[in-house]
Amino acid sequence: MSSILIKNIIHNQEKTDILIKDNVFSKIASNQDTSADIIINGDGKAILPAFYNTHTHAAMNIFRGISDDKDLFSWLNNDIWPREARLTEDMIYHATKFSILEMIKTGTVFFADMYFESHKILQAAAEMGVRVAASYGAMDLFDEERRKQAILKTQNFLDTPNPNPQLATKVLTIHAVYSSSPELIKFIVETAHQHNLHLHIHACETQKEVDDCIKQNGCTPIEYLDRFGALSDKTILAHSVFLNDNDIKILAQKKVRLCTNPVSNYKLASGVFQFQKLLNSGCFITLGTDGAASNNNLSMLEEMKLCALSAKIQSMDPTAGSAEDVFKIATQNGAEAFGINAGVIAEGKLADCILVDLDNHFLVPNYNLISNMVYSADSSCIDTVICNGNIIMQNKHVNGEEEIITKMKELSSEFKN
Amino acid sequence: MSSILIKNIIHNQEKTDILIKDNVFSKIASNQDTSADIIINGDGKAILPAFYNTHTHAAMNIFRGISDDKDLFSWLNNDIWPREARLTEDMIYHATKFSILEMIKTGTVFFADMYFESHKILQAAAEMGVRVAASYGAMDLFDEERRKQAILKTQNFLDTPNPNPQLATKVLTIHAVYSSSPELIKFIVETAHQHNLHLHIHACETQKEVDDCIKQNGCTPIEYLDRFGALSDKTILAHSVFLNDNDIKILAQKKVRLCTNPVSNYKLASGVFQFQKLLNSGCFITLGTDGAASNNNLSMLEEMKLCALSAKIQSMDPTAGSAEDVFKIATQNGAEAFGINAGVIAEGKLADCILVDLDNHFLVPNYNLISNMVYSADSSCIDTVICNGNIIMQNKHVNGEEEIITKMKELSSEFKN
Repeated sequence: MSSILIKNIIHNQEKTDILIKDNVFSKIASNQDTSADIIINGDGKAILPAFYNTHTHAAMNIFRGISDDKDLFSWLNNDIWPREARLTEDMIYHATKFSILEMIKTGTVFFADMYFESHKILQAAAEMGVRVAASYGAMDLFDEERRKQAILKTQNFLDTPNPNPQLATKVLTIHAVYSSSPELIKFIVETAHQHNLHLHIHACETQKEVDDCIKQNGCTPIEYLDRFGALSDKTILAHSVFLNDNDIKILAQKKVRLCTNPVSNYKLASGVFQFQKLLNSGCFITLGTDGAASNNNLSMLEEMKLCALSAKIQSMDPTAGSAEDVFKIATQNGAEAFGINAGVIAEGKLADCILVDLDNHFLVPNYNLISNMVYSADSSCIDTVICNGNIIMQNKHVNGEEEIITKMKELSSEFKN
Repeated sequence: MSSILIKNIIHNQEKTDILIKDNVFSKIASNQDTSADIIINGDGKAILPAFYNTHTHAAMNIFRGISDDKDLFSWLNNDIWPREARLTEDMIYHATKFSILEMIKTGTVFFADMYFESHKILQAAAEMGVRVAASYGAMDLFDEERRKQAILKTQNFLDTPNPNPQLATKVLTIHAVYSSSPELIKFIVETAHQHNLHLHIHACETQKEVDDCIKQNGCTPIEYLDRFGALSDKTILAHSVFLNDNDIKILAQKKVRLCTNPVSNYKLASGVFQFQKLLNSGCFITLGTDGAASNNNLSMLEEMKLCALSAKIQSMDPTAGSAEDVFKIATQNGAEAFGINAGVIAEGKLADCILVDLDNHFLVPNYNLISNMVYSADSSCIDTVICNGNIIMQNKHVNGEEEIITKMKELSSEFKN
């Protein structure tokens, strides 16, 4: 049982002390004299919730910058998929550790991942001390052999021991309606219901996806997924760009979690998420970076800024996408989407947080800290990251970061050609 | 006469040595044994051009975050203008120094400023060792008394001694066609021609500005400015969002410098710059952050990322706004627009550059450094900044930064209410 006492930290614009016992915020009150295993001097710093990245493919950092400014088809077919085929388990493990390092440096303590060899992702997250919702990215491209493989790999993943059940959950994936047969979707949804697992799905990312689905199935991807019983408050839909009014009604009613990925949607020129309209329609929104190959980093700070800016230009209304709303979807909503009792700094909540440096120029003046975080801050503002009551970054340093970076350089040299 | 030898630095993907003599890159070749006043160990770093921010209102950092997510009218009328009226010369001086600190931290060595009390801006830039094109932001709101004042203040500014002629130039400003009478525009343009000065103008920022100009003058703001002889390769037009095909033809022909400010245009929901169309039409594009009150920082790194992303979504084409094109407008084009013989790392060019840390996670893997700078890097990647042969930041530290930040905190406390 460990304890941390953070002294003289700014919380909601007031100076206070915060006691963390085990993995929860146990007391928030000034002038606490309790002894604690670790004392953190909070002078000149503020405490804020950490970020919850609800859609990424972490290991893809290994392809950062290898192929930019290309159309989606040649990007995937010529540059990404042939290289992905060369990835080994070991590479995925090291690349994921590296990506988690980048997440920690930018204040993120949780990621919902969709990739392969996901037992290695569980291992990387456990070693780095962060939360993860790992999944095997099942798809069959409507081929029976591949479907058998996808089902087998999904089952194997579910049978894999979870190295850190306190921080890691397994979730199930339908890659997308255009890549998954009805039989596979049916299997995944039934398995999710049977084990009470979250579902993580790419949906309505491009206009083509929606048009094709309507042509083939006579309904939108949202209506199609709904037919399988795939939509609930345990479902996370990444992208969710192209939604019609009926889709929106269904999604709001079923409390489906819509993860917006603005940087990726802009970079691949997919389309623009209807942030304010969806919020006003009662939809539940979360934020994710997508993989670094289409971003090109895992910074939730940059993602928040574009999320807010994009909401404004999309509505042609500068009051849309307010800093408060965007900060909430990046923190509280992300945690809630995956059933994590965190995302706000309050007694009884799990002790996930960041300490930001109020002397950093990006946070000066400090009229509105949330606005500064959304519109001004970058990683240089984040001093300390705590996940589940453990300090995983302090004084901007993560244990072992040099080795992790060296390893990534070594691995990436394999992909230069 | 001073000299700097940068040893073993990565330049265009090759390790080399770079000798700076006085204020120019004098020799780029490996294994240089020359003695030099300062030796920089370039191991693990790459040299790149620094950034040239061609449109900002630097002192407005003092209002960062004070009023966000509001419509333009209430933002300006209720929150910004009443507070601007309370700014003293001294505040503008300190706020500008603070803003220059933020620029240096994010790799910028030049800014084209438009504000008041511009002799104080010249002083701040001289003390911080950066380049500036300072101007007095003339406008008269079609009022004769104000016109006399604007003319007087412009003349006074031209008469002010320039504390650092090597790094600073004075330019003339027409605030915008909606805020300046024909008489004032005529005076400013004639004075610019007479003294061979650059002109810095807000143009075509909003649809309303264009519609009103057509209603009042029977032509677009571009055609209107052209009538006064205001358009040439010494003219910088900030924003330039709403341009028709005839405008574009004029602007390309006259080599007018179009400064795009994507973050500000998105934040105020003004509109989207037609990046790729303008580039393909032969227009000359530069990049600027606008003031921090509508951004909310002065990072050209963040500005480049949105510039590229916005170009893609605007064209619905992921090949638009390539990293190479965007990096060029932020560096080489910005310098060229103001007649500064810099913006590329080459022998004979003025010694402006940044050294970036290749061990920073955002720059790993390093398949394409320019892509990493545009899409992935933040300020934490920038280790050293050199302007005109002087080191103005090293090991991420700027001389006197703590005092500059403390002063800004003190001043901003005056504006909390």
